[in-house]
Amino acid sequence: MPTDTKRGRKMPSNYFLNLAKTRKTTYEFSDKKVKQSDIKKILEAARWAPSCSNVQPWQFIVVKNKERISELMKTAFYGAFHTNPPIIIAIVLVNECWKDSEHRCDLDSKLGIYEGFLCIGMSALNMILEAQELGIASALLSPHQNIIKTLRGRKGDFIPLMVAFGYEKKKAFQKKRERKELKKLVSGEYFGRKMKL
Amino acid sequence: MPTDTKRGRKMPSNYFLNLAKTRKTTYEFSDKKVKQSDIKKILEAARWAPSCSNVQPWQFIVVKNKERISELMKTAFYGAFHTNPPIIIAIVLVNECWKDSEHRCDLDSKLGIYEGFLCIGMSALNMILEAQELGIASALLSPHQNIIKTLRGRKGDFIPLMVAFGYEKKKAFQKKRERKELKKLVSGEYFGRKMKL
Repeated sequence: MPTDTKRGRKMPSNYFLNLAKTRKTTYEFSDKKVKQSDIKKILEAARWAPSCSNVQPWQFIVVKNKERISELMKTAFYGAFHTNPPIIIAIVLVNECWKDSEHRCDLDSKLGIYEGFLCIGMSALNMILEAQELGIASALLSPHQNIIKTLRGRKGDFIPLMVAFGYEKKKAFQKKRERKELKKLVSGEYFGRKMKL
Repeated sequence: MPTDTKRGRKMPSNYFLNLAKTRKTTYEFSDKKVKQSDIKKILEAARWAPSCSNVQPWQFIVVKNKERISELMKTAFYGAFHTNPPIIIAIVLVNECWKDSEHRCDLDSKLGIYEGFLCIGMSALNMILEAQELGIASALLSPHQNIIKTLRGRKGDFIPLMVAFGYEKKKAFQKKRERKELKKLVSGEYFGRKMKL
């Protein structure tokens, strides 16, 4: 069981697993704003995400302007299922750090597009988990690349994800949270070989 | 500050942020094995990762056989920098769930390759954070796709990542952990516009 060393007291052993299992997509946000100090913590978690060869191929654009948020939500696949959040953080895969070629790991200090996307996924997940710890609701959104124009990205920048943050409205729409069974997802030693769990 | 509802006691507010910031790559593993119950928790965290349209495009192959691990480490970019771990979990982007085309979000129940990689990154991160909570060391490794043959994947399967788990050797090689400064990573409202943090 991990110990919170600063205070020297025991922590429940399933804290993270519980955080990971209870994270969910929020579809309807209230008007309540997110504190600047919390935004900073969310960005801090993103910054410390792992990346291939520690390239850290990301930049983060924090958007609070209502009109711009409205415009961004229109670029999102299934964006119409969501109400507008009070804040969006768009994650930029910056042109200095990737090349649109196949699988490659840090050639000429640039990642391939595949590794780039792996990294962006990890920084996004760190953000939403940190938000959840702070009691802040979130939604991951995939944008059309006309988002680049809205956010004044440069040639070669790519914005694979944007993350909406805020607080869930009362009686908000809620999807059933479900996952495939573990035993259908796991093999032992090689693909398709059953493994006792 | 979040409350651990089961026990009704207060949790330190920065537990997750601390977990995210202290996660690191382990280069040298001891021979100590990872308990089966811990492997199950790690897989459970992976299973609950977010994915685009909840497609859950993954399968997990748990490898413990020493010869196979040795072979897998040879497929990894920079694998030679690591000693062999006692266990590897390879994440398969399964052929039923993706198509090798550009950005697309769940067309015909298949993700595009970009979304596929985003999802794989998130399941991997959930695994290594859960491992860290359990005191288990890890390393993310990018394999060459000849790994598919070693793990008997099917046509169209892709293995973007494998994750090594175990316990760090005493006096193991350690890279300096560093990240770009937050102020150099964050813009407000649009790309390149400075934002006070």
